[in-house]
Amino acid sequence: MLKVPEHQVAGHKAKDGVMGPLVDDTGRFYKPLQNDDRGSRELSFYSSLSSHSHPSIPLPFFPAFHGTKVVEASDGSGPHPHLVLEDLLRGYAKPSVMDVKIGSRTWHLGDSEDYIAKCLAKDRESSTIPLAFRISGVKDALSAWEPPRKSLQSLSADGALFILRKFVSSNASDPDCAFASEVYAAVLERLLELKAWFEVQTLYHFYSCSLLLLYDKGDGKRKVLVKLVDFAHVVPGNGAIDHNFLGGLSSFIKFLKDILAQPTIHQ
Amino acid sequence: MLKVPEHQVAGHKAKDGVMGPLVDDTGRFYKPLQNDDRGSRELSFYSSLSSHSHPSIPLPFFPAFHGTKVVEASDGSGPHPHLVLEDLLRGYAKPSVMDVKIGSRTWHLGDSEDYIAKCLAKDRESSTIPLAFRISGVKDALSAWEPPRKSLQSLSADGALFILRKFVSSNASDPDCAFASEVYAAVLERLLELKAWFEVQTLYHFYSCSLLLLYDKGDGKRKVLVKLVDFAHVVPGNGAIDHNFLGGLSSFIKFLKDILAQPTIHQ
Repeated sequence: MLKVPEHQVAGHKAKDGVMGPLVDDTGRFYKPLQNDDRGSRELSFYSSLSSHSHPSIPLPFFPAFHGTKVVEASDGSGPHPHLVLEDLLRGYAKPSVMDVKIGSRTWHLGDSEDYIAKCLAKDRESSTIPLAFRISGVKDALSAWEPPRKSLQSLSADGALFILRKFVSSNASDPDCAFASEVYAAVLERLLELKAWFEVQTLYHFYSCSLLLLYDKGDGKRKVLVKLVDFAHVVPGNGAIDHNFLGGLSSFIKFLKDILAQPTIHQ
Repeated sequence: MLKVPEHQVAGHKAKDGVMGPLVDDTGRFYKPLQNDDRGSRELSFYSSLSSHSHPSIPLPFFPAFHGTKVVEASDGSGPHPHLVLEDLLRGYAKPSVMDVKIGSRTWHLGDSEDYIAKCLAKDRESSTIPLAFRISGVKDALSAWEPPRKSLQSLSADGALFILRKFVSSNASDPDCAFASEVYAAVLERLLELKAWFEVQTLYHFYSCSLLLLYDKGDGKRKVLVKLVDFAHVVPGNGAIDHNFLGGLSSFIKFLKDILAQPTIHQ
């Protein structure tokens, strides 16, 4: 039985007649395959990952891929092909989740002029150009904190720092960063591993790709998870590293390091 | 007595009625102060560097600054204010010099629409977007190798690798990379130090700034030098690292590491 995921923070949601992702009760996530280049590009990326024997690819950063399947679309439009992926949020009692789109440029030279103009306008209005990342969504299942997505996209450095502090806090108003050392130390360790790969890999350039950060705010273990998601704009590296993703990742890492160095602010 | 420098590889040259830099015989380099924002921005950057007591700034990467001075302009137009800098090439018998403009974006959000459009067009046509750097000029005083600047700007990854190999070779046609281990090992050491600074510094964002690589191809010591030059487009960091420069620097570093790992190519 497929249903709409409870804690989706970014991308199209399956409601109000929009086709969105679905989950089943065996831990699989069904992402509608887009009908254009984006769908075929994301499918070919997942296929290349799973067929690739390249030993350097850090597979644990990518959701497990189980092929494609035609299932009833969430918008009631009938059967539609979906990517079958791992449901990353399965088993989390009170997930705290954040989606961060990495990079100071969300387009590449192979895109159409219209698409480039649209992306560039959004990159300029959002924190994408100043910070080289934009927070696409955040949700705390414990406190039900879920700031409007629009408000997150054009954050200043101070604004981003505040959201990142709040994401690891036990209280709502004045962030106490109670979970900072536990959560961000684990996140940072993973991100430094990812960064080491991005400093050398020339296989792929990841445009408009997101980091998904996840931990459990319930009473049990934190289960900190760091994954890459959204590969509809992945293109070949052509001999260069993905300096755009690496720059954004390094910028994001600096924010986490600053919080770890000073978890509480005394004003 | 001021004269035109012998081995300038990028920027306006002082000839054919163009105002360009001059050098004297005491080791000083006179750069004409541009009349617009660029001039005032470069002057204020150098001033902030020399007055700044910020202990983290790696001053050896910047040319020494000796204030400004009004001297006769090289184009015969009369007295003009110049920045007085260190003449980096002084004392080199046979300098081999390369200017590499770092970053995948040469403009910033404070620039005018016209300027952004102009820069973006050039960034898209050149290697600035694909590689996050473009070679602005290269010259070998020993062999007189000095490829046309235009041919350097839109290099592919393979093309850039070829020029970078040739820069440290003793022969002209099939690069032997005779000086690679000596020169690039020293350059790499410096660049990794610079990169460590760019991973944390949020004081400045350096747009359209260049790395100057220099060594002596004569019989004496190599005297490998790595400097940053051109600060007419430096703006405050506003709380974020300079992800644009860092991405380009990391991309350039990857090329040098590849050459060091495989100095000779067997085809």
